[in-house]
Parts: sequence; structure tokens; C-alpha cells
Amino acid sequence: MAAPRLLVSRRIRATPYTQRVEALGVSGYSVVNHTILPKGFQKTVEEDYWHLKKHVQLWDVGCQRQVELRGADAARLAQLMTARDLRNARVGQCLYAPMIDADAKMLNDPIILKLAGDHYWFSIADADMLLWAQGLALGMGLDLAIDEPDVWPLAVQGPKSDDLVARVFGEQVRDIGFFRFKVFDFEGQELVVARTGFSRQGGFEMYPEGFSLGTKLWDALWQAGADLEVSPGCPNLIERVEGGLLSYGNEMTRADNPLECGLEQYCQLDGSVEYIGLEALRKIAASGAERLIRGVVFEGDACPACQHPWPLTAGKRQVGYVTTAIWSPRIEANVALAMLDRGYWQAGTVVTVEVADGSQSRAVICELPMEAS
Amino acid sequence: MAAPRLLVSRRIRATPYTQRVEALGVSGYSVVNHTILPKGFQKTVEEDYWHLKKHVQLWDVGCQRQVELRGADAARLAQLMTARDLRNARVGQCLYAPMIDADAKMLNDPIILKLAGDHYWFSIADADMLLWAQGLALGMGLDLAIDEPDVWPLAVQGPKSDDLVARVFGEQVRDIGFFRFKVFDFEGQELVVARTGFSRQGGFEMYPEGFSLGTKLWDALWQAGADLEVSPGCPNLIERVEGGLLSYGNEMTRADNPLECGLEQYCQLDGSVEYIGLEALRKIAASGAERLIRGVVFEGDACPACQHPWPLTAGKRQVGYVTTAIWSPRIEANVALAMLDRGYWQAGTVVTVEVADGSQSRAVICELPMEAS
Repeated sequence: MAAPRLLVSRRIRATPYTQRVEALGVSGYSVVNHTILPKGFQKTVEEDYWHLKKHVQLWDVGCQRQVELRGADAARLAQLMTARDLRNARVGQCLYAPMIDADAKMLNDPIILKLAGDHYWFSIADADMLLWAQGLALGMGLDLAIDEPDVWPLAVQGPKSDDLVARVFGEQVRDIGFFRFKVFDFEGQELVVARTGFSRQGGFEMYPEGFSLGTKLWDALWQAGADLEVSPGCPNLIERVEGGLLSYGNEMTRADNPLECGLEQYCQLDGSVEYIGLEALRKIAASGAERLIRGVVFEGDACPACQHPWPLTAGKRQVGYVTTAIWSPRIEANVALAMLDRGYWQAGTVVTVEVADGSQSRAVICELPMEAS
Repeated sequence: MAAPRLLVSRRIRATPYTQRVEALGVSGYSVVNHTILPKGFQKTVEEDYWHLKKHVQLWDVGCQRQVELRGADAARLAQLMTARDLRNARVGQCLYAPMIDADAKMLNDPIILKLAGDHYWFSIADADMLLWAQGLALGMGLDLAIDEPDVWPLAVQGPKSDDLVARVFGEQVRDIGFFRFKVFDFEGQELVVARTGFSRQGGFEMYPEGFSLGTKLWDALWQAGADLEVSPGCPNLIERVEGGLLSYGNEMTRADNPLECGLEQYCQLDGSVEYIGLEALRKIAASGAERLIRGVVFEGDACPACQHPWPLTAGKRQVGYVTTAIWSPRIEANVALAMLDRGYWQAGTVVTVEVADGSQSRAVICELPMEAS
């Protein structure tokens, strides 16, 4: 049976780029933050993978909504909501920041943009963190404004990203540091341009305010990129798995804590910073995580899509599960992201994967990102 | 171009009914609360409309997630989160309950099930109200547990619903009052059966706990209904518009207050009950809502789907917008739900609708629900 269509109503928002990606033959969508996210075009995932590693792509990531904190208590609330130490964060910095609940379970993994000492954007994965922030602020009687601004992120990814973006914004874009942003003028409006993105091929994420500015930005980049083989794109599953880029809702959920997700480097654990979930997280850290996200490589034909976790077994015992899997034409094997129990997460450990199509394969655990990805 | 497919990953949850509806030829999906919602089957929307008004249908509404409040402060938080007066709510009652923010803007419109004095389910529309509730409770230091239980609502809708459900649960289901629920035994587990649903054709919503119990419930109802012409179904757009049933995210959004949404009867405005947004809502009530959701009937050929609001104009002035529209084979005209400015919401007012296909039609405002729907 053909996969069911996505039926769109006002409740599932189009983006400033939707008309453009539809004209370019978008073939599939997902829904993130009540907004459509393109998931494929006319190219196969493999063709798209090679293109992303060689050229440059525009990605409609308008679904990456911003939770804006602004006002006297903005810095206080920002710190309360993440395990990452924000004390030394500077204006112009982008910070990957696990958000956890009082039990230290993962709520989200946004990038925080520090726009000013009293002004932050949390660029969020799929969950209404606006409601979490507003509930906390109202309950605590904090003094700040919390909103979702009319901002529609657009990503430029791939090794030719600097060349393309420099054509539109000038050579100074090359000076933007990794996980740093600068504010440019575009069409008479301020535009945040950050060196971030959901691939390991380099590039930028841009934050146009207003629907029409977004469409103008797409058009400017598209026209400037014709001889760079610019293409519409989207997060590429092969590249994402090889690169060890985790997706909230897939690799990590509310059932997991950030240490299980391998995010310890983004967690301040010495007790010198107060945030929601600190006590629970320190307790977990003291005894050590019981499981860990790892890479997996397994043999066999190209596997189907992983729509629900596939068991990983050792003997007759389940020791983990795969959350995302796909054939890698470069490694010439299936590659996957998986959660492994303690004792089975060492690189080189051999387990068995039970694929949804009923097949079983020998699977080898590896570090993330995978070799030379 | 064919509508893009919905690509499903672990992040977009399947329900206990997904395998059943796929076997029955589901043709389209939406996504609600990170869960797939069937939107169509092999029947056309018109065939489905007539079937729903005559027979009985099973609807996979597993996306209607529950926010469970349980503990000492459960009643207090439940009341804080809704403008509806819960003081006289009884155990066994279902209460349609607008949830608003501090500015009296609509956050959600759940049905609250009062399971015990210290135990509530909020059966929510599309937004992570779990995070709102948990943020408030944590910020205020309230004493209760707030979770999303493993409950997967299944709706039985249509005039033969009592006959079908009685075959599975016994004749006592006929005694369940409108917007009341009773707890039955099913396969050795407790099961909440409520006389509610997102149609005006009668029926029930059931709340099985656990994935496998849900699938067993579907199968029991399906097998019992063969000679009742039971069919898979979903909220029917024609019936919903004629019946004036509002959809959060479509007719009402965070830009609207409950008085604009015609929900004044569900709002306690005399100040005797404290809830979030009370002050703002009383201020709005004192001056009167500036706009109101109404029905609209308009001529012309069958209109396309309304994916973003269509302007309603009087002369050259915009006086409202359509949020949902579809051809009604019974009324033999297009029917729509719309937000109208004050001065234009009286039944019988004539305006112009600017349909997305570029056509303009004469449109007449009407009360909701529409005549004899």
C-alpha cells in the first residue's frame, strides 16, 4: 500500500518555504512543532547524501520554533531550564543545551542563542517548550516576556555553504565561528546568521523574522547558488546517523536522561549552578548511567525504515534497541543509532539486531560519530 | 502534484489501532500530539458523512492524549487551568473546559474526566498541555503527580453506537448519560466508557489503558458490528462544520479568547472562582468580544480544502476569515466555520468569501450548529 498522505489544515503550519519546496517536488513531509518539515525530494536518500557532502543545500527548517525569553528574569529562567552551565555564555554564542524535568528526564535539546544579557532564543526540537517556560514563569512569578516570535529558520548546509552565503551577505560571513552567530542586514531588516545546522558538512542556520522575509531569503540564496549546484534538501538520514546527530523523539525521549544520551559534556554536575533536575541528575551521575546511545553497524540487505524500536539481543536477552537505521552506501552496511545497556556499549561489542522485516543480523557497536563521517 | 506522504518515525507515534486502519485502507493522516490521526479511508468524505449519520463507525483517536492529575493538589491545579467552574463537578462527569493563559488566550479545549476527588484526566487537543501543567505545578510547588498515562482513546460514533457498544459491554451502557462516563470491566481491566465524541451523531469515547488492550477493544467492537455495517472512520469534516464542532488549531488558536470562540457558557466570569486568566477574561467580557466564530454558507462549486484562512470581506474591508470549509451534499452549498468581526456576525449577514482558488462567492452568516444538522 502507498504511504498515506499528510492532510494539511491551518493547525499544521506551512512555512515561508513551503511553496518553494512544493514547486521543487517535495515527496514527503513530517510534522514538527505543529509545522510541516520536508523529508525528501526527487533525489533518492543516497543521491541526496552524496550531494550534501559535495555541494550545498537549502533546508526548510521553519519547524525549528523559537521560545523567546526577554526581560529581567530571562537569564534566570534560561539557566533553570537547562543542565548546561550558562554563566560564561556570551552574546553571539549558540549553546547546545539539554532541557530536563525534575526527574532529569529529557524534555528537549535546543540550541540556545544568547541575543543579549536579558534576551534568549531557545531553538527547539519537537515539543511545546513555550508552555513549559510559561508555566514555570507564571508559577514562580518571574518577571519576563515569553513568546514564540514570527521567526522561520532556514538552513544552508554542505561544503559550499560559505561560498553561497558570502554571495548574499558578503565575505564577513566566513568569519562567523562555529556555534557563533552574527546579525546582518537583509532587505532592511536584522537577520541572525549562525554557523550551526543538523549535519556535519558545514553551513549556517538563518533566522528571518516574518513570513515574507523568509521567502525573500530563500529566493536570494537560490538565485545566488545556481552555479554551485544548490538543491533543496532536508536532514539526511544517512549523514545524520553516521554523524551521530540525535533527534529528540527518536533517539532520546522523556524516558531517557542526558547521561544516557551521551550529553554529559553539556551538563554542569558539580552543584555550582542551580537548574531543574540537578539533584536527580547528580544522583544518576554518582551511580553512572545504566545505558548509552551508540552507533551500530550491521550486515544484510538495505534495511527498512525504523518506525518503532528494534530489539538488540545478546543470546536470548534484550540488551538495547535501535531507534534509527538506514543503508550507508559509503560504509556499505546498514548504520543505526541505538540505546545499549551497560556492558554492551563498548565499541566492538557484537549483538544481534531484530529488524522489523523479521530478519536478524550480526551488529557491531561503534562510537559516534562513525569513522570519517 | 500528489500530496506529499507522511513519513513516520518513532517520534510520531502509531496507536493500537494503526495496523487495523492500515489494513482497512486508510488514505490520509494528520498528526496530533505527536501521534498519527487517520483522516480518510476508501469512502469519499460525502459517502463517509452519510454512513456516519446512518450507521456506526470506529475512530482511531489515540492522539487524544490524557494529562493525568493525581494527588493532594490535583483539584486545585485542575481549577487553575480552566475557566470552567469545577466546584460542582461530580465523579463520573465529563466537562468541556477551555484552558486559557494569563492573557485569556486559548491554550486548549479538553474534556476533563473527573475520576475521583483527587484524580482528573484532561483529554486534550493538539498541544503539550502536560508541559504547561508540569511547569505550573513545579513553579508553584504543588503536591501532585502529573503524567501522560498509557491510554489510547477509541471512539464509537453514529446512531447505532448504543447497539454496538451494548453487544460488547452489556445493556447498562445505554444508561450512561450525555457527558457522563462509567467504568466497565473489559478483559479483566477497568475501562472508562464516556458518552462523548467529536460528532453530533451520538456515541462513545473509550479509554483503554495499554496498547494491547486497545487493539483487543478494536477487535471486539469490529467483530460485534459486522451486521451493523460498522466502518472505520474519523472526524467527518462536513458533519463537524454543520455541527459547529470547533477544532483547536483551526477555528481557535492562541490568538483567540474563549468569548470570541463562543465558549462563554463554559467560563465562570463572576469572580467567585480563581483561575489563570480570570482577570483578563473579565476585562474582555466587560467590553464584549470584538469577534465571534460563526457558520458560513456560500454558493459556487465544491470549494478546495482551506489550508490557511480565507478572507471574508464587506465592500473592500476584511471583516473576518474562514478557517474550515467543505461542500455539504445535504445543504447543497459550501459550509464553513469562520471568525467574524462585531457587526458582521449576525445570522443572515451577507459577506464575500475569497476562496484560495481565486474565486469569490456570496456568503451568508449563520448560527452554529447549522439547521437540522
